[in-house]
Formats: sequence, C-alpha cells, structure tokens
Amino acid sequence: QTCFFAISGVLPSDDAIAKIKESIQKTYGKKGEEVVRRNWVAVDQTLANLFEVAVPAAVTATRGRPPVVPDEAPDHVHSLMAMMVAGKGDLLPVGAFSPDGTWPTATTQWERRNIAIDIPIWDPDVCIQCNKCALVCPHAAIRAKVYDPGELEAAPESFRSTDFRAKEYRGQKFTIQVAPEDCTGCTLCVNVCPAKDKSNPRHKAINMELQLPIREREIANYAFFQALPELDRTSIARVDHKFSQFLRPLFEYSGACAGCGETPYVKLMTQLFGDRDLISNATGCSSIYGGNLPSTPYCQDSHGRGPAWSNSLFEDNAEFGLGFRLGVDSHKRFAEALLAKLAAQVGDTLVDEILTADQHGEANVAAQRARVEALRGKLPGVADPLARQLELLADYLVRKSVWVVGGDGWAYDIGYGGLDHVLALGRDVNVLVLDTEVYSNTGGQASKSTPIGAAAKFAASGKVTGKKDLGLMAMSYRHVYVAAVAMGAEDRQVVQAFIEADSYPGPSLIIAYSHCIAHGYDLALGMEQQKLAVTSGIWPVYRYDPRRIENGEPPLQIDSKPPTERVEAYMRNETRFRMVERIDADRFKRLAVAAQDFATQRMALYEQLARIVVPAHDQTNDDGADGSGE
Amino acid sequence: QTCFFAISGVLPSDDAIAKIKESIQKTYGKKGEEVVRRNWVAVDQTLANLFEVAVPAAVTATRGRPPVVPDEAPDHVHSLMAMMVAGKGDLLPVGAFSPDGTWPTATTQWERRNIAIDIPIWDPDVCIQCNKCALVCPHAAIRAKVYDPGELEAAPESFRSTDFRAKEYRGQKFTIQVAPEDCTGCTLCVNVCPAKDKSNPRHKAINMELQLPIREREIANYAFFQALPELDRTSIARVDHKFSQFLRPLFEYSGACAGCGETPYVKLMTQLFGDRDLISNATGCSSIYGGNLPSTPYCQDSHGRGPAWSNSLFEDNAEFGLGFRLGVDSHKRFAEALLAKLAAQVGDTLVDEILTADQHGEANVAAQRARVEALRGKLPGVADPLARQLELLADYLVRKSVWVVGGDGWAYDIGYGGLDHVLALGRDVNVLVLDTEVYSNTGGQASKSTPIGAAAKFAASGKVTGKKDLGLMAMSYRHVYVAAVAMGAEDRQVVQAFIEADSYPGPSLIIAYSHCIAHGYDLALGMEQQKLAVTSGIWPVYRYDPRRIENGEPPLQIDSKPPTERVEAYMRNETRFRMVERIDADRFKRLAVAAQDFATQRMALYEQLARIVVPAHDQTNDDGADGSGE
Repeated sequence: QTCFFAISGVLPSDDAIAKIKESIQKTYGKKGEEVVRRNWVAVDQTLANLFEVAVPAAVTATRGRPPVVPDEAPDHVHSLMAMMVAGKGDLLPVGAFSPDGTWPTATTQWERRNIAIDIPIWDPDVCIQCNKCALVCPHAAIRAKVYDPGELEAAPESFRSTDFRAKEYRGQKFTIQVAPEDCTGCTLCVNVCPAKDKSNPRHKAINMELQLPIREREIANYAFFQALPELDRTSIARVDHKFSQFLRPLFEYSGACAGCGETPYVKLMTQLFGDRDLISNATGCSSIYGGNLPSTPYCQDSHGRGPAWSNSLFEDNAEFGLGFRLGVDSHKRFAEALLAKLAAQVGDTLVDEILTADQHGEANVAAQRARVEALRGKLPGVADPLARQLELLADYLVRKSVWVVGGDGWAYDIGYGGLDHVLALGRDVNVLVLDTEVYSNTGGQASKSTPIGAAAKFAASGKVTGKKDLGLMAMSYRHVYVAAVAMGAEDRQVVQAFIEADSYPGPSLIIAYSHCIAHGYDLALGMEQQKLAVTSGIWPVYRYDPRRIENGEPPLQIDSKPPTERVEAYMRNETRFRMVERIDADRFKRLAVAAQDFATQRMALYEQLARIVVPAHDQTNDDGADGSGE
Repeated sequence: QTCFFAISGVLPSDDAIAKIKESIQKTYGKKGEEVVRRNWVAVDQTLANLFEVAVPAAVTATRGRPPVVPDEAPDHVHSLMAMMVAGKGDLLPVGAFSPDGTWPTATTQWERRNIAIDIPIWDPDVCIQCNKCALVCPHAAIRAKVYDPGELEAAPESFRSTDFRAKEYRGQKFTIQVAPEDCTGCTLCVNVCPAKDKSNPRHKAINMELQLPIREREIANYAFFQALPELDRTSIARVDHKFSQFLRPLFEYSGACAGCGETPYVKLMTQLFGDRDLISNATGCSSIYGGNLPSTPYCQDSHGRGPAWSNSLFEDNAEFGLGFRLGVDSHKRFAEALLAKLAAQVGDTLVDEILTADQHGEANVAAQRARVEALRGKLPGVADPLARQLELLADYLVRKSVWVVGGDGWAYDIGYGGLDHVLALGRDVNVLVLDTEVYSNTGGQASKSTPIGAAAKFAASGKVTGKKDLGLMAMSYRHVYVAAVAMGAEDRQVVQAFIEADSYPGPSLIIAYSHCIAHGYDLALGMEQQKLAVTSGIWPVYRYDPRRIENGEPPLQIDSKPPTERVEAYMRNETRFRMVERIDADRFKRLAVAAQDFATQRMALYEQLARIVVPAHDQTNDDGADGSGE
C-alpha cells in the first residue's frame, strides 16, 4: 500500500502516507501506542527502502529457480501437490484426485518454506539434555535422538553430537538437530532452554543464528539426523516429558503461526499415539494447519503408520469422533467373531492370545501387531471364505486411539452440546481442547472460555463473566477422565495426562492452555506466560481420574502449587487485557479484582474438591451381580 | 376395534378377537402380564357390553344439547374458540384471528370437560388445613380460601366451611372446594391428604365421591367459592407451601394427563409470580398443555393480570427466554431514561421513588405498581412528547419475572447447549426443568436425564449410564442459583426454592422431579413415589445459593435427610425399571446395584460439597474498586 501510493501518483504522495498513518492509528490505537508506533515505522522503512529496479532486456542469470518440490518427492506429490503449490491447481483434471476424497499424508516435508531469518543451533557442551526445546517446538523443527556411536561414522563434519548422560541407554550418543528450512524462527526453544553457559549467561544450550549462512550445512546435518535409526518404541525406558521426545513426531512443519501454543500438544499426541491415532478435528485453527491444502502435516513413521485425520463441521466434531469409535468397535467385534470361528484353522493359541491381549503400553501394542502379522501370514492358506473377510478387518484387532481435537469455540460453545452428549455416553474417546480462550481462527470473538477482563469481539470492553469451567462440568459425570494442562508450566504433567487419557477405557478430556497471537504479545514468551498463568492461579493444572475412586482415593489431584503471583501480573503481560485499561483504567482495575476473586474462589474450591472421597462400589450390594451394568 | 370386528363380518368374529388379543400380547407383553390382562379384560368387557341401539324414526327427547361454551363466555370465546371446540374451525376466516398471532388467555374455564367419574369432597371436621390437596392438584381443580365470615351469608346451603385454625387471620373462615367439572379424578389430593378420621381411618379429610349425583350441587358451590374475595397478596402472612395455596392459580384446567407430575409446579409458579410472569416454553408436554389450541390454561387475576406465554422451538428455548429478559431490560432502561428526563414535570419525589424502589416481595411490587399508576395519572397532563413514549413503556417499571420452562429432553439434551450459554451469561432468568427423565411427549425416548436401569426407546434393555447431573454442572459457574426439588417429598422446600430463584438477581435453575405416565404406574401414587425417590437417595433435594458465598456460608445446602431406603425399592414400583427384569432378571439385578452405587456416590459427593466454603470477595484487593466488574 505504501509503495503503491508513493509511486502511483493517485494522490499526492505525502497526503496518502499521512492517511495511511491515520488509518493505522484508528485501527490499532486501542491496542496501544507501541503497536501504532511499530506500524508507522514499517511505513517509514518501506519508503526508506523503496528503490527502482531496472528490468533488464534479456535474462542473464545462470542459476535457475529451485524446483517446486524436490525431485525425490513421491509421484503423487509431483502430480498433485506440486501443481497446486505452483499456482496451477486449476489445471488439474478431476481424475487427478482420489475418488473417495482421501488425501495422502506426510507431504509438508516436500514444501520447504525457509521463512526463518534466525534458526536455533545447539551447543552440546552447555546442554543438560532435558529435551524441552524439542517438546515445545510448534513445528517439530527441532528434534532429539539417542543412537549408537557407530552411526556417527558417516556423519557430516559439522554434525554435532555428545554422550547421552542418563542411566538409561548407557554409551549412546545424543543430538539435538534443527530442521533449518522448516523452523519458523519463533525462539520458543531458546526461551524455554534452562541451560546457561556459566561464563556467558546469555549463551544457552541452544541459540539463534542467521539461517542463510548455515542453511546448506544444516540441511546436510538434518538429512543425516533423519536417517539415524529411531529408538525402538517398545524398549523405551519411560515415556515422560523428556523421553517422549525420542519418539518421532507424526505431525511436522505445519502452517500454524510461528510460536503457536496449540501445535506442541498436537505434536505430542502424535509422538505418543500417532501410529494408532484416529483424529476427528473441529473446524478452527487446528483444522486449518491440520490439513492445509495441498500439504498435510500429519505424517508416517518408518513402518508407514501414522494418524488418520478428518475434519467435519465446527458444531459436530465430538459426534464425528464418536462415529470413529463406534466404527472401530464394530469392525473389531466383527473381526473377533470371525477369528473365533476360524480358530481351528488358524490355531487356537494364536486366536486366544489375540482375543485376550492387554494392549496398553507400547510393548503390548507391538506384541499384538506381531500376532496380527502372524495371523495375516496364516490367512492366505485358509480356504474358508470367512478368512477373506478377516483379511480386510484384521488390523482392527490392534488397539486404536480415537482423539477428538478442537478449540474452545468448539468445545465450550458451538460444539458443547454434542461434546457433553459424547462424554455422557461413556465410550472410549479422548478429547483434546486447544484452549486459546477466544475464537482464534474466525477473528477473535469471545467464547465461554474467555476469562474475566479479556477484550474480544462481543466483549470489546473486557469480559465481565467468568471463564466456564468445562473440566468441572465433565467431572460431574464421575466417569470422565479430565485433565487441565499447561506445557510451559508443568511439562511432566502434560505427558502424564496424555498417557492416562489414552489408557482410560472411557471418555477423556484434556484442556490444554494454548497461548495465541490473539492474546497480543511476543509468542517467544509464550511458555513463560503459561507458567505465570499457573503460578497466578488463573490456570490450575490437575488430573481427575475415575479409576482412583475404586482405590478409595480422591479422584481429583491438583498438580500445581498454591498461587504465588497476582492474577493482575499475568493480565498485564497481554494486550487482550491491557486494551481495557487503555480505554477505561478504572474498569481494568475492577476487572482485575474480579479476575483475582474468580481465581481465588476457583482454587479454594479445587483444593477442597481434591480432598473429596467418593465411595467405591459397595460389594455388599452385589448378591452375585458384578455391578457393571453391561 | 373390538366392536368393529364383532359386527362387521370382515373376518370371522372369533378369529378377529383372537388376533386382537395376540396383538395386545405382542405390544404390551414387555410391560408385564398385568398390563396384558387388563387390555384383554377391556376387549372382553367390550363384547359383553355390545348392544344394538335402535335409531328411532323421529326425535322424541325434550332436552337439548348443552351449549359448546356457556352463554356468559366473552365474545372472542364464542366467535373463535367455540367454533373450534365444535369442530368447525375450518369455517373460520383468516380475519377471525389476531394479526400479531396473539391468543387470549384464561379460556380453559369455558371448556368444561366433566371427565372425572369420582371427584374429591372435603370433610371440614377431619381437615387439618394443611392445603396439600390444593398444592398437588395438577389441574388447579381443588382450591383453598380464607375469608370473612360475613361472606357466608349468601352461601348455598351445601357450601362447606369451617373456622380457620392458625395464628394468622384469626376469626376468618376456611374452605377447600373442588371444581367439579374440571377435576380429572386423579386422586392425588386424596392420597396426599395426611388427615384421617380416627374412628374410620379409611375416611380422610378429602374423599372421592361419584361426580354425577353431586355435579350440580358442586357447580353452585364452586361458583360461590370463586366469587369469594381473594386474599390480598400484599398482606399475606408468609408465602410457604401452605399459604401459597391462598394465592389464585393463574394456570388452571389444562389438558395435561390426569395426575400429571409437571403441572403442580407450573401452577405453583403462577401462584407465586403469575401476575408478573413472562414464560418461554420449550416444545414438549408443557407446550402442549400450556397452549393447547383453542384454549389457554394460563389465566388472569381479578385485575386482569396474568402470565404472558409463548413457545418457540425445542432447541432454542433458553435463548428465546433470554430474549424476553433482554427485551424487558431494554424497555425498562428506556422508560427509566424517559422518567429521569421528565422528573421536573411529573415530580422529583415520585420519579426518585420509582427509580430506586426495591421490588422484591409482594408488598414492594404492589407499592411500585401504585407509583406507576400515579405516574400514569400525571402523564396525560404533560405536554412533552417524551410523555407519550413513556405512556407506552411505563409498565416496564414494574419488575417482571422471566421463566424459561421445559422438560428434560430440552434441558439435558436438545436445548442444553443454549441453556448452558444462557446460564453462563449471568442474566436474571429463572429456568424450570420439569424432569420426567424421558422424552414424554415424543413417545418415551431416553434422555441424558434417564436414570440407570430405566427402559426407554434407545435404551430398551435398561439404560447403563448414569443420569446427567445438570444441577452440579450449573453450580460450576458459581453465579447460578440451583435447586433440585420434589413436591411429593419436601413441599416446603419447593416453595422456598421458587421464591429464592425469583429473588436471585442472576440466572436460576430449578430441576423438578415430575412423575409421569411414561414411568408406568398408577399416578394416584405419584407423590408417594416422589417421596421414595428422595428417601432412597436417588433424588436428593438441595438448594445452591450464590448469595451464601458472600456470607461465608457453604453455597450448597442439602434439604433431604440421608437415605433410609434402597434404590431397588424405588425401582420396583415403576414399570420402566421392571420391564428390564422381565426381559433379563440378571441384568435388572446388575443395573439395580449400579443404580445404588450411583446414588450412594452422588449422595456422598453432595454431603462433602455441602461443607465446601468458597472465599468471599477479598476486600483487600479492592484498592477503591468495587470488584463487581460492571
């Protein structure tokens, strides 16, 4: 706009620029002077750097444009995705698309964006090997591996490595490696890094460096890193906030905002269960970056396994995910019935093992996969036509993990009626609410999750009513696993909650604090702000596990410590709250008091709820019945 | 059907009757042998009482048919309702209807149904004057009055009366009177009557007698009773379960089922607030009996005041009622602004009194009405055009009570997303859920309110999941007044809950246990079964009042005593549970255990919740602000 008006002569240049600045003042004035100032600087810098470029008469350059996608990309990427990336999607014939509407996964890897000016580079000497940088990366662009020292023989000279320092995997090597062309430069990893060089505290174990000079070097390093063998999932020492980062993310290089607070949770979900995930996604940010035509960030492991993903409507996502569950269960029951009928032909022992297998935990899932492989080996030799049916359904004998994913606009508001219904039904679905406390994707409207004092569309002068307590409402069923998590505050608890949710045989609900550009601050500080959300008491983290009832324990456990900060300190870090102060300082003050009261009341309520014991099933009632009702 | 096949010769009569009985067996077999037997008896009795009636050649009778509606009915009843009652509605021109779609209230009184074989007759000598009979009557067909002895001078000889025995209204007379043509003969009043003749315990203070022989006598008595002056609402001693019955019901003679468990609550609501009620009604039983074309049971007091009522859709009733609230508030604000501008012209004192009036309690409402009357007296003398606007809006200066009414299908399921949203917004609406635990009007489908073990459509073998705890979910907001009530168990608490809900300046939710024909037992026993619901712990009654938080008291109070009966005893009284036993006795046993566990857990949870204290607003945070946030 600035260039256009400076060159075109449509208006006198100075008048036009003044009008642009007026318009900036009007549009962003509410967000504070700093926002206006930075926009004005952008205009001034545009003018200062406006040069005429003479178009030469003939092409003289000797270098060509890089290919749209690398040559080594698979055929379907060349024939379909590359056409769309090149802006030629309208030339594709209908026949180029899959008739059933499916779309290949694992294709963002073929669309290198190179948008980061700076990228993080690891310093093995300072690193304490906590893996937090990998955990928080929104784009799976920084990864950790442990591997045999022998693997290093073919390493590029610049490849960095060190001894893995833990009681597990003794003698192994360890590397943190950036994907240089996929990193967005958000700096979350650097800010979350707890390791400092004592002689130079500004130097951490991971530090931002200009990308361009080191791009080729790091491309080679990343390619080598990618080729290193993955850790065997079945032998992993323990799956926690640290060791989970040795599991390959099956969600990578999405188009989410730099510094996105949602995608680290999505990525973690795929690391933990991605090889057996069915994901139903509500419309919203997560459906956009989750399947942003033409590329798909959900990807596959070395066995070709990865999440199956689909997006229905904004309003019916819980029901859509329930349908996945019912479908899987129905196929599984059918497969089990076929298996039982074919027992004599494929072997009673194998059949019995498959039908009675405990499939919780990586090793058990792998064992079942091996059994189903063995079954598949035998089926071709069985003439019974039922064997042909079982060949189609055998994969359903391996446990699936159904995840229902969406934002707060879906879970608290538009899809809440359906979510409540699905939670009530008691089926084994896992719900992940990426809670940005506002309709992020549709432009910042207030949801029932928006906290007291935050300005949003439909609450322009700061929301007066308190945040809806979705977790507490779900707990009222007593058969729903519920967790509230915040990765920047309690990362260990986040991983614990995901694993418990997956293992719980009924509905689970994880409400995940997700910082967002809609909150109005530099997202490089997102994880610190998450910490403050917890220490100020505005976002207590907890787990409610119905299994604890049968053990005589209180089902609710609060995983955060009593608040040590004021809610106002949290509020002052974010433009969504400060906007109110700018318009009406007294109102901000009142809302800050109301927000403090709300948080204090909620915390006090939780602390008392966490002492509540619900009586276990009373066996004296049994009279021979098992009380399960099913 | 039986007559048709016995006479018509379409099939051999015996074969046809046998087929009918087979069909009865097939349709009702699941409901138990007794239901089948009674249907068979109906068929046999039909045959035994099938007589040929010779049609005389000429009319010889001297009596005429009674008029469709009485002569004294208002014009609109003659021109509109009577036509429809007579089955001639299709002859009505479009112009006969109000162009804005409104429909006159208070018209069921002109449609005497005379459907009761027996009606209750009062024995003043046995009566203990508790008014329970009037409270529980689903059709407002039995009423109580206290009045000056002088009024009795013109009484019919058969009119019954006695001295009112209470410390209030000394020297007054007391009468319980049935509306003989509107009573449905359900017998709830007799069963709930606690007073017995000691010499003959089967004789109570109210006893069923054949209607026909006493019809004319009681018509005269009821007409005299109706003409007795109503008690002055502003001077009423106290509004509780007993004295509320001296307030005229503004919901009478509806078409609800005989013995309906819902309508006593609706009637009570109109007794307490009917003169200032705006009611939005979800589709369901309550919208059918609430506005059953062409007659309307909502009626008017002697001042012509009564509820305004409308029905929107099944799914949007809470939002519809919220619209009433927003509309009333908007009109009120406009009226207040006009009043302030006209203060000098109508008198500062009156204006100030109107604008600052406390309008809680009958006397205060009456005082405000008097002020608005005075204002209306002055406005015609004010030339300012604003006075013309205020004349249109002045009635909004008197406090209205907005009630959002519907069943569990609406509140727990189809309209729950909207109900939750309206509760979250914090506006002053009162929600009354008539909880029959099943979609009654649409034919018995399971809702999320259906309890464990009940058979219903979509849960034909007995529901496995527990009843949704709508009240607990609403409490999670901490700004919603919530009560669970059961008239048959704790009638004092019911009235208390209604009054507190109305007085609470935010959203209120009353969940009212409503026995229903869908439960499958003689509804004459409905109130006893309500009692068992409470004493078995399956329906604890409670009140959660957010105002108690500021007083440092636990907001939740449980109003029922610890359970003394087993849940199974409650279940065994109702066909909806026993149907399961008939199909699968073991399953019934398991579900009964699960239901007991569910009730025990819930009760234990409530008892602990009732000890929870939520910290009041912390004034040390105030720093001059009031913390209200508005």
